[in-house]
Amino acid sequence: MSKSSSSAVHPIKSEEIGTQEENLTKPMSDLHNIDPELIQRMVYDALVWSSIHGLLVGDKSVQKSGKVPGVGMVHAPVALFPTSFPESHWKQACEVSPIFNELIDRVSLDGEFLQDSLSRTKMVDDFTSRLLDIHSKMLENGKREEIRLGLHRSDYMLDEQTKLLLQIEINTISASFAGLGSLVSELHRSLLNRYKEQLGLDSGRIPVNTAVNGFAEALAKAWEEYSNPRAVVMVVVQPEERNMYDQHWLSTVLKERYDVATIRKTLAEIDEQGVLLPDGTLLIGDQAIAVIYFRTGYAPADYPSESEWRARFLMEQSSAVKCPSISYHLAGTKKIQQELAKPNVLERFLENKDDIAKVRKCFAGLWSLDDSDIVKDAIERPEFYVMKPQREGGGNNIYGDDVRKSLLRLQEEGTEENAAYILMQRIFPIIAPTYLLRDGICHKDHAISELGIYGAYLRNKDRLIMNEQCGYLMRTKVSSSNEGGVAAGFAVLDSVYLN
Amino acid sequence: MSKSSSSAVHPIKSEEIGTQEENLTKPMSDLHNIDPELIQRMVYDALVWSSIHGLLVGDKSVQKSGKVPGVGMVHAPVALFPTSFPESHWKQACEVSPIFNELIDRVSLDGEFLQDSLSRTKMVDDFTSRLLDIHSKMLENGKREEIRLGLHRSDYMLDEQTKLLLQIEINTISASFAGLGSLVSELHRSLLNRYKEQLGLDSGRIPVNTAVNGFAEALAKAWEEYSNPRAVVMVVVQPEERNMYDQHWLSTVLKERYDVATIRKTLAEIDEQGVLLPDGTLLIGDQAIAVIYFRTGYAPADYPSESEWRARFLMEQSSAVKCPSISYHLAGTKKIQQELAKPNVLERFLENKDDIAKVRKCFAGLWSLDDSDIVKDAIERPEFYVMKPQREGGGNNIYGDDVRKSLLRLQEEGTEENAAYILMQRIFPIIAPTYLLRDGICHKDHAISELGIYGAYLRNKDRLIMNEQCGYLMRTKVSSSNEGGVAAGFAVLDSVYLN
Repeated sequence: MSKSSSSAVHPIKSEEIGTQEENLTKPMSDLHNIDPELIQRMVYDALVWSSIHGLLVGDKSVQKSGKVPGVGMVHAPVALFPTSFPESHWKQACEVSPIFNELIDRVSLDGEFLQDSLSRTKMVDDFTSRLLDIHSKMLENGKREEIRLGLHRSDYMLDEQTKLLLQIEINTISASFAGLGSLVSELHRSLLNRYKEQLGLDSGRIPVNTAVNGFAEALAKAWEEYSNPRAVVMVVVQPEERNMYDQHWLSTVLKERYDVATIRKTLAEIDEQGVLLPDGTLLIGDQAIAVIYFRTGYAPADYPSESEWRARFLMEQSSAVKCPSISYHLAGTKKIQQELAKPNVLERFLENKDDIAKVRKCFAGLWSLDDSDIVKDAIERPEFYVMKPQREGGGNNIYGDDVRKSLLRLQEEGTEENAAYILMQRIFPIIAPTYLLRDGICHKDHAISELGIYGAYLRNKDRLIMNEQCGYLMRTKVSSSNEGGVAAGFAVLDSVYLN
Repeated sequence: MSKSSSSAVHPIKSEEIGTQEENLTKPMSDLHNIDPELIQRMVYDALVWSSIHGLLVGDKSVQKSGKVPGVGMVHAPVALFPTSFPESHWKQACEVSPIFNELIDRVSLDGEFLQDSLSRTKMVDDFTSRLLDIHSKMLENGKREEIRLGLHRSDYMLDEQTKLLLQIEINTISASFAGLGSLVSELHRSLLNRYKEQLGLDSGRIPVNTAVNGFAEALAKAWEEYSNPRAVVMVVVQPEERNMYDQHWLSTVLKERYDVATIRKTLAEIDEQGVLLPDGTLLIGDQAIAVIYFRTGYAPADYPSESEWRARFLMEQSSAVKCPSISYHLAGTKKIQQELAKPNVLERFLENKDDIAKVRKCFAGLWSLDDSDIVKDAIERPEFYVMKPQREGGGNNIYGDDVRKSLLRLQEEGTEENAAYILMQRIFPIIAPTYLLRDGICHKDHAISELGIYGAYLRNKDRLIMNEQCGYLMRTKVSSSNEGGVAAGFAVLDSVYLN
């Protein structure tokens, strides 16, 4: 009655391309020589694959697409090919991931270091100031986070001249695309397999991407540590979220693999519905919360009123596992990144000399605006610097001649405002031809890429439960669309081809 | 480096509902008593599930959604719950499926029967006439189809009064929703599992749905029989197709499980690019075609010009396996269905008395308009009849008082036009409360359902290769939206809950 076994079918491969596959696979640099008709077929297949495998985002031209799932969907913007990346630098980025996880945890425990390092930023940046206020209150109350969960993404660029892998930033709050990123790796593997004959590329060189499973596992284990079987994971979301399918993938894996339920609430809803019980339990309505997973709350715009700040404070007071806690959030700021790059600061948090060397090797030049020699050099040679505001959200960086102008203005005004910025060495990544796929249309252009490495960390008091590199995301964008950096808004999702 | 095993996590179920599950599962009739808040959660989960698992269609409000994959997508319209169906009738429909497959094959071989049965229809129905012309030419040329592939869907309704499972029609061309139908069964299973505690329904009562695998297997085996490893399967498509993801699922399974490639061409493109080699090989450009799989060509509107008819004729002359051949197409027409229901006609094609009895048991009353007693009765009691035009495409049936008016008009005019219709016993299916999900919105209404059983059949000369029931599709629609029948355009996709 049911279908018979498929074993009776032995399709004959239409062409054998030789037995020594290794010798025949090409580097990725030949991309511009590919037959346009082949590209067209690959684009069609990529669009179909993305659609039926859930590699989706909400279409911003459809009003409801950020509110209601299942309507106004469009394939996620993706690169048609994975981006070539040296295996040695790939290994370096993976190896340093658990060390960064541990570093963030150690820094988060040093309340004084966080408050001191950010004290001048506090005076000029309202947003950081509000976060620090919550942090201070927690310190005053002697609140300790015993179960600490970190779901990070550390972003790197490969500097073409020095061949160094340099960290752009580490995201300790709302690190996105673990769900869709895993799918992009599968999409690329599928395309390279399907067109193996024509392309001669080896899909085995795309690293396995377990980002979504790793994050789900960490959330599940954190939920288990909380030890309330009736409690759920709460995803704190923006009122409109066109990247909702990335989040739904994580919730789906969490439910299907670990039988852990999630609810989704905005900060305003949490303020309205949230109650703190005397024992620290956070209730939303009558639902106890085991783990609070932030997919909002990282930028000033996420707090349009006092309601959102009340919600953040309420959650921080609770016993729920916070991903991230206010300390983890602060430990991921650019100012702390710059402080950690100062001589002898890493040594405060890490003991192992090898670990310290590995972390330091990833640091680009990072300076505060107090450093008059560097400021002078940046005014003279602004093309070698990026000026980064402390506040998050991307797209606010200052490049090129604007660095000079901004520094001169700050000098003239003589205010405290310079504490709102850091200076960073400008990284010049490799520019490579790429096919970018967006809204069903393929564009060929020259692009730069940024590698994100996902890390998951879980600790309960002295017991380390999980500390892993658990996947990756390449983001690629047209090199001329911005002076540098890969802003999330303009980038397409991509994967890695090791060479 | 990679994520650790998940075995360390042992989530505790939030509530055990007892060990004797069988005693606790409820019938589906309690649907109207479900907590609206639970329905809301299920709707959200159903929308998410559909989106990330490829249960999609093109959104008709987005212009490009029928042309370009990956843009303008919306979840397929679905029922929130599977529809209750008696296990005995389910088994009956599955059991008769291979017999119908065989019957269609036998009828297709009897060219004279097809021509004679449709001779009067030919005079009044241009579309059937064109199909018969092609059929005649093939008979004249002595063209024989040696590899014969049937991918059918036989549709049934359960008559409430008589409790009989009655066949509505059998689709021998372009039977759709094998891809999405399989997914709907999975969606319902997922929802019943997730809400087992609250609903008390047993997901095991949803039959496993292998429609897409069964169809892919049959196409792969037909491709293999054709024995040209460089040839591909050609899906003949409409210029715009919002149900493209149903088709893409089939092509994807065909490629990934059987490594058989597909191309997609419209009838106009086939006319333009198609060439017939002296040995019968059909080339599209320089690509040989092993199997022609029609997802268009069943309705007059699919042939807007002579170009499309030329393409159909060209394909029919080729050696490619046609799904369907012109004979299979004609064997599935309503007029042939009515002829087969006449006394002693089934006996021309089937030997086994049991098989004949099983097929006959599914036949509703079917009459030609030559039958003056029936026509007289239908004029007097039109509510017990449906008048069906020979031409396909759905939505053209005549119900209620219009039956009387139409029959009287045909009598007055005294033309041959009555040969364009058949009369069928009106079936009154069970009306049940249903939740229908469309464009992200859930409606509760009273609805009727039609069960489609997929059958796959493959023969090479005397060698029977495959003859199976291979899946199902329930289609459900609001009972007041039409006088009867379940028109595809208004129905939502659904699955079966056996009771």
